[in-house]
Amino acid sequence: MHDKRQPVELAKSYLLLNHGPVALVSSASHGRRNVMAASWVMPLDFDPPKVVVVVDGRSYTRELIEASGEFALSLPFRRIANKVLAAGSISGREADKFAHTGLATFPAGQIGVPLVRDCAAWLECKVIPEKHNQQRYDLFIAEVVAAWADPAVFSEGRWHFPDSARRTIHYQAGGSFFETGRAFECANE
Amino acid sequence: MHDKRQPVELAKSYLLLNHGPVALVSSASHGRRNVMAASWVMPLDFDPPKVVVVVDGRSYTRELIEASGEFALSLPFRRIANKVLAAGSISGREADKFAHTGLATFPAGQIGVPLVRDCAAWLECKVIPEKHNQQRYDLFIAEVVAAWADPAVFSEGRWHFPDSARRTIHYQAGGSFFETGRAFECANE
Repeated sequence: MHDKRQPVELAKSYLLLNHGPVALVSSASHGRRNVMAASWVMPLDFDPPKVVVVVDGRSYTRELIEASGEFALSLPFRRIANKVLAAGSISGREADKFAHTGLATFPAGQIGVPLVRDCAAWLECKVIPEKHNQQRYDLFIAEVVAAWADPAVFSEGRWHFPDSARRTIHYQAGGSFFETGRAFECANE
Repeated sequence: MHDKRQPVELAKSYLLLNHGPVALVSSASHGRRNVMAASWVMPLDFDPPKVVVVVDGRSYTRELIEASGEFALSLPFRRIANKVLAAGSISGREADKFAHTGLATFPAGQIGVPLVRDCAAWLECKVIPEKHNQQRYDLFIAEVVAAWADPAVFSEGRWHFPDSARRTIHYQAGGSFFETGRAFECANE
């Protein structure tokens, strides 16, 4: 399987996260790698684009991000939601979570962290060190240094999901998700 | 119109924001009040519950939040999306945005800030002062001190949207939104 990806202009990369989808956070350092699911991730700024993400202090992902200063966000399609849930059910210290979950990867462009296949879009991120936020709130601020999207679902700054299987997803709790739903337009009155 | 609301247990209030909906951020100080729309809002912690929200440094909302140390998040139903968009189109310094947009209010329980009617849920928040985050990133961290939901759409820790008009919404850009879509369950394998 070869994932198609087109670059997304950095100043428009916030549009990928603006609607609040689930992200897979991947990380790597010195030959070790991991992936976790995150709902607590959002844009923080437009240009240069920044994001914030919450990463638990005890997690293996945290260890790898603090070692490398990098992470990637991959926005999973609904059709791999079962793997997204599985990525939240074990620790990467116990087993290679990519192998365990069946999440396949391909290389990032600007950072040394794998991106996850079968996703709608990808953001490559470099941590802006903010020790107080990281230690007190498990909150990481990062600059987006590259962004990509599958042109079948996102192009010219807009999402256009062709089918249910290739929609982004939103997490509720206990294995329950929402698909990103119907688009609608409002006019300023 | 009388909005029905039931209290949501504080430790479960993160569930209201977990799926990434648009929020109306209302604020008040010394007889002045305002409301803005925000997509850049998410949970930060479970218990005590915290949230983060980005509030532009030049906004009237920012002035009121910094004066009072409080704000409320109201999660609008799809049926008032046009008013949500209108709330983003003028400054509260120019006109009373509640009057301008037709967004009606009712009193909060724990804070002196109005909640917005015709919404799915509400979170009452007190700012945890973090000057560096506020000044450098326009990022506010707050503790959730009370939470409420319309039992027609949220009860026992789960969303159950009865119809399209009463779904929460997610912002794309340029007046384009998504409804919160179909729910689906995954089982851990």
